[in-house]
Order: sequence, then structure tokens, then C-alpha cells
Amino acid sequence: MGPATRYLNLSRPFLMYRGGELPEIRVAWESWGKLNASGDNAILVFTGLSPSAHAASSSEDPEPGWWERMIGPGRPIDTDRFFVLCINSLGSCMGSTGPASINPATGQPWRLKFPELAIEDIARAARLVLEHLNIDRLHAVIGPSMGGFTVLAWLKQYPGTTGRVGLISSACSATPFAIAIRSLQREAIVTDRNFRNGTYTEDEWPEVGMRLARKLGMITYRSSSEWQRRFGRSRQDYFPATLFGMRFEVESYLETHARKFVGQFDPCSYLYLSRAMDMFDACDSDETLKGLFRRSFTGHALVLGVDSDILFPLHQQRDLAGALEASGSEVSFHALPSVQGHDAFLVDFESFGPPIREWLG
Amino acid sequence: MGPATRYLNLSRPFLMYRGGELPEIRVAWESWGKLNASGDNAILVFTGLSPSAHAASSSEDPEPGWWERMIGPGRPIDTDRFFVLCINSLGSCMGSTGPASINPATGQPWRLKFPELAIEDIARAARLVLEHLNIDRLHAVIGPSMGGFTVLAWLKQYPGTTGRVGLISSACSATPFAIAIRSLQREAIVTDRNFRNGTYTEDEWPEVGMRLARKLGMITYRSSSEWQRRFGRSRQDYFPATLFGMRFEVESYLETHARKFVGQFDPCSYLYLSRAMDMFDACDSDETLKGLFRRSFTGHALVLGVDSDILFPLHQQRDLAGALEASGSEVSFHALPSVQGHDAFLVDFESFGPPIREWLG
Repeated sequence: MGPATRYLNLSRPFLMYRGGELPEIRVAWESWGKLNASGDNAILVFTGLSPSAHAASSSEDPEPGWWERMIGPGRPIDTDRFFVLCINSLGSCMGSTGPASINPATGQPWRLKFPELAIEDIARAARLVLEHLNIDRLHAVIGPSMGGFTVLAWLKQYPGTTGRVGLISSACSATPFAIAIRSLQREAIVTDRNFRNGTYTEDEWPEVGMRLARKLGMITYRSSSEWQRRFGRSRQDYFPATLFGMRFEVESYLETHARKFVGQFDPCSYLYLSRAMDMFDACDSDETLKGLFRRSFTGHALVLGVDSDILFPLHQQRDLAGALEASGSEVSFHALPSVQGHDAFLVDFESFGPPIREWLG
Repeated sequence: MGPATRYLNLSRPFLMYRGGELPEIRVAWESWGKLNASGDNAILVFTGLSPSAHAASSSEDPEPGWWERMIGPGRPIDTDRFFVLCINSLGSCMGSTGPASINPATGQPWRLKFPELAIEDIARAARLVLEHLNIDRLHAVIGPSMGGFTVLAWLKQYPGTTGRVGLISSACSATPFAIAIRSLQREAIVTDRNFRNGTYTEDEWPEVGMRLARKLGMITYRSSSEWQRRFGRSRQDYFPATLFGMRFEVESYLETHARKFVGQFDPCSYLYLSRAMDMFDACDSDETLKGLFRRSFTGHALVLGVDSDILFPLHQQRDLAGALEASGSEVSFHALPSVQGHDAFLVDFESFGPPIREWLG
């Protein structure tokens, strides 16, 4: 929601994938580079659970984006060559309509009255932006983590619309381990004394639950071995040390980062996006994954993952690559040696940059 | 605290390893088999964080124990041959003195007034039971998980007192990942609206925090691949399904088990034992691990672990085995192929039984 964010406002009803509707929606997006005359150089980028559409800086908004070193002039996703679009997910609180938006029927935030969100809805809201821009075919669509789910939801609904597919540290559906983690994150939020069934106020915010949810997220976004190297058993002196609070550096690290997050993200938005991830299944119809790819895509697919990822374990990326190959696509699959776990795609550009650059041709 | 539990009551002060003292202590223990005439067939068993001393059933208490299939006549820890003792940890709420016990000075439960607990204190309380029974040398000492920490704390303080050492799914200290997990568990408890700085009552119990803590524990006690096999993405119909509550089988499984635990374990006891695990370090003096073993033990060591354990990862057991070997002991090290994660020692007797039987000679 910086100065470079653009908004598509639609005042007609948006039917939700799992039932219910939104009477109007807004979709926030940001772009870099120029659409060429033939309109065939667009790359669509979907995000993980929490980022905004601000994936990279620009002259209009010099603030670094969440994929800053990946997107830009001369970068792996090269904005000198491509028109790059990043979409803020429907359901988020970073510009697009979500549970924190005002329900026009009541003049109050939607909160828990928001209809159930599906990953398919996020893809469809993005599609409306592309229609608005008169882009009907993409050079590539790419997404990390939940963004990879959204790429698959895109293929399900818009077959034959892209020449390249990039699935980064993602999967065709969540493991029970990932569902369990997210279930606990949600439980921490909804049981916070300030949550009050979604009627929290700015003064009485469910901070405790959001902080716990964020810390638990961070534990699963990184790897045990990375933390062993970074923190070991070092003690912290940033916060007052307490018996059951903070003594170790890993504890103050989590606390510092969780405090930043708490004020930035709407608790209900978090709940809806989190559950949408649990529920997503690329194969929830009778279609197999191979069948889905065969029906929706022929081209060059990129599948990346790291073996230290416990949230989207590497065998899930292998499954994606296997199904893509079996469906007749050209597949570049890389099991990257990063120690940084699920979040590696956000920080380890040395590993993730080159295969993405190569895949885009 | 069944009919077979015995208690040692000491009315003299017990000085705590990290400072402070308890004016009196009680240590709960249970035993199986008979001490032989030469008094050299005793096996001491330490427990993980939550179990009582009831490790196995007996004619006096037919209720199955927490290591039922491991201890008994003809079982791997054979009570026809050995006198087996299991000690309830000091700090626990299962019979031994802990934060839930009455502070004789006030007539009220200790709760957060309990002095800081160290794993070394647990070993020392057990030593008092052995002195009471006139046992000064053990055939073996063994412990899984936190119990392995206690075995090491035993060796530190009582060198040369055992012919065999068994370290099961344990380590010489906690990883930052394990500390982070436990830190979150504690945060969930102390931020529960009913915790009230340790003044919770039976009617207003910090259930929400304890349930979250237990669920988070269970997530780290098992493995992602086990849950993939057991639950996959199956839906549950045991509890009413809700958008942010329970839809998947893995969610109702966690809920069912957490509900059982909540009423059984004292929240303050949990906090003290949990932090004692974070703080334990077999090498917190200037001594190396190899130096510790060289000073305290020569005999046959058993080190077991499983590669799906994320709480006490296998490399930690490798380190223990390496240091034991370097110190001149005979070492049986087994990296077991169990899919059941940290809890495998509680359930996978096919894998854990045979090496334990063999090690005991």
C-alpha cells in the first residue's frame, strides 16, 4: 500500500469459490517494467501468506520489496525485459479486500462475517486485474509458498494461459504437519482474550495470540540447523532476562520479530488466509495432478525447494516436478542446498536467483 | 501416584543447584523385581518431562505404565533379573515435591515461588532414594528424552557409580529449535488469562494455554511423515467442524490428546521442568563432554535415536556416542529407522526393545 500500489475496484458481486459472495471487491497490485506491443512479456507473481504487492522497489516507491533482489532491472526476474505484476491476495489486509475491509452493507469491518476464502478466489481476483489490463496470455506465472498454491489454482481455472510455470517451495496441498501448525496459530489468536469473536479494537488488540502465531510461524519458516549456527545456546541481553521469559538469543530474536508483525497484520485476515492454505488441494476434483497439468499447461516449468523446509517438505516439490514431467512439460527441478528452511526463497538469492533467471529464458 | 508408589520424605533442607533451597522434599518412586544379595543388579530409570514413576504395571498396580512393554518379567529391562527403580522427577506434580506442592512456610502451593529447578536437582533427589535403599552402585542408569539429560546430570555428580549408561533420544543440551518450541509453550501458559502470575485456581485453570502447549509438544514429538501416513488430509467428524477450529483429523487428534493432558499436569510444574531442559548443559563447567565421560564412566554405553526426531535430532545422539567412544567406553549406537519421531521410544518397542535388552547383557 505504498505510492506505487494500484487498485482495481469492481462494484459487481464476486462469487466465492466455497460459497457466499462479496458485493464489491478491490484488488491491489503493483507492476515493474513495460508491457510490450504484442503483450506477451507479462509475468504474474503471487505472494506467500503475508506480503503485500510491493515485491520490489521502483522510482515511485524506493522502499525495498519482499522479493527485492529477485525483481528489477538485470535481476533474475528482469524488469528490463518483462512486465512484472505482483498481486496482493484477496483476503489479505494489504490493499485488497479482506476481513479487515468495510462490509458495505453494515459500514463495519467484515471480520468473521467475511465468507470463507479459497486460494481459487485469490487467483480469480488476480485474473480480473489481468483482464482489466487486457493481458490474456502470460509469459510466466510464479509463486512461492502459498503463492505456489495460487499458481496451481490459476492453472485449474485458466488453462492454457501461460508459457511458463514457477512453483517455489510449494506443494499441491498442505501436509497434516503444516495443518497442525496453522491450527495452533489460529487457536492462539481466537483464544486471545482480546479477540472476542472478531470484535477486537485497536486499543484491545489480540496481541498475545498474534505474537504466538507469528513466533510459531517463524519456527517453521527456518531450520533447526540454521538456528544452531546462528544462535547456538547464546544468551540474550536485549530484553530483561526472566526465568520463563527470555534468556536465550533465539528467544529474543523471536520476540523482536513477532512484535514487528503484530501491529502490521489483521488477525482475521491471518485466520482466513491460513485456513485457505489448509483447505487448498490442487486435486480436489476427480482430476489427478498429472491430469490437471496435462489439461492446463504445456511449457517450461520450474520447481524449486530446499531440503531443510519442514513446512513444504522437499518430497512435495518432487511430486510436483514428477507430475509436470509426466504431463509432458519441460521441467527444471532443483533441490537447493539451503539451510534456511521454508523462508530460503526470501533470503537465499544466490541459490534461488540463477535457476529462476535461466527458466525465464 | 498409584498404589505401588513409594515416597521418601526428607525433612532437612535440599539446596538447589542454581540457588535457593527447599526446606523439605518428598521423592516418589516405584520399583519392580528384587535387589539381589550383593546389591549389584539395580537399574535406575529417569523419565521424560511428564511421566510419573509408574513406568510399568505390577501385581500391586495393574495399570499399564509409561514404558510398559520395556519393563517387566522377560521384557528388555527384565525384572526377573534386575531390580528396576523409576523416579518421579523433582519439580514434577506426580508425587515428588514440585511447584504444585505445599510450601510449609506458607501453607500454600509453591507455584512461582518455587526456586529455579535444574536437571542436576532431579538427579540428586534420585540419589537420595538410592542412599535410602543402601544402593551405592548401579548395574545401569537409563533415561529417554529429558531422562537422558538426568542420566548425564547423574554422571556429572556421581562419577563411577554405574556400569552401564543408556541415553535414549537425548542430547548433551537442547538445540535453539527445542528452546524456541518450549519458549512458546511457556508463553502460551503464562499469557493464559487464568494463569494470573501463578495464582490460578481449580475453577479457573489456564486450560487454553496448557492445551496449546500440549498440542505444540505433540507436533514436535511425532514426525511429519508419520502424520502423513496416519492422517493425510482426512476430515474429522468427532467434534463439530468449524471454519477456524476443527475440520481435519489431525486437528481432532491433537484436541483429544490435549484435553486429556490439561487436567493432569500442573502448569507451574510444566514451566519449571520445561525451563530446566533449556538450561541443562552437560558441559556447563569447563569440562568437555569427552572429559565428563572420562571422569565419570567406564563401561558399556547405549545411545539410541531416530532420524525423524526434530526435538532431539539424531546428530545430537551421534555427538554423545562419539564422546563416549573417545572417552574409552564400549558404545552401542543405533540410529533407528522409526518414523515416529521423538516419541518413538514410547511406542516403537520393536525397534527400541532389542538394543536395550542386548546392552543390559
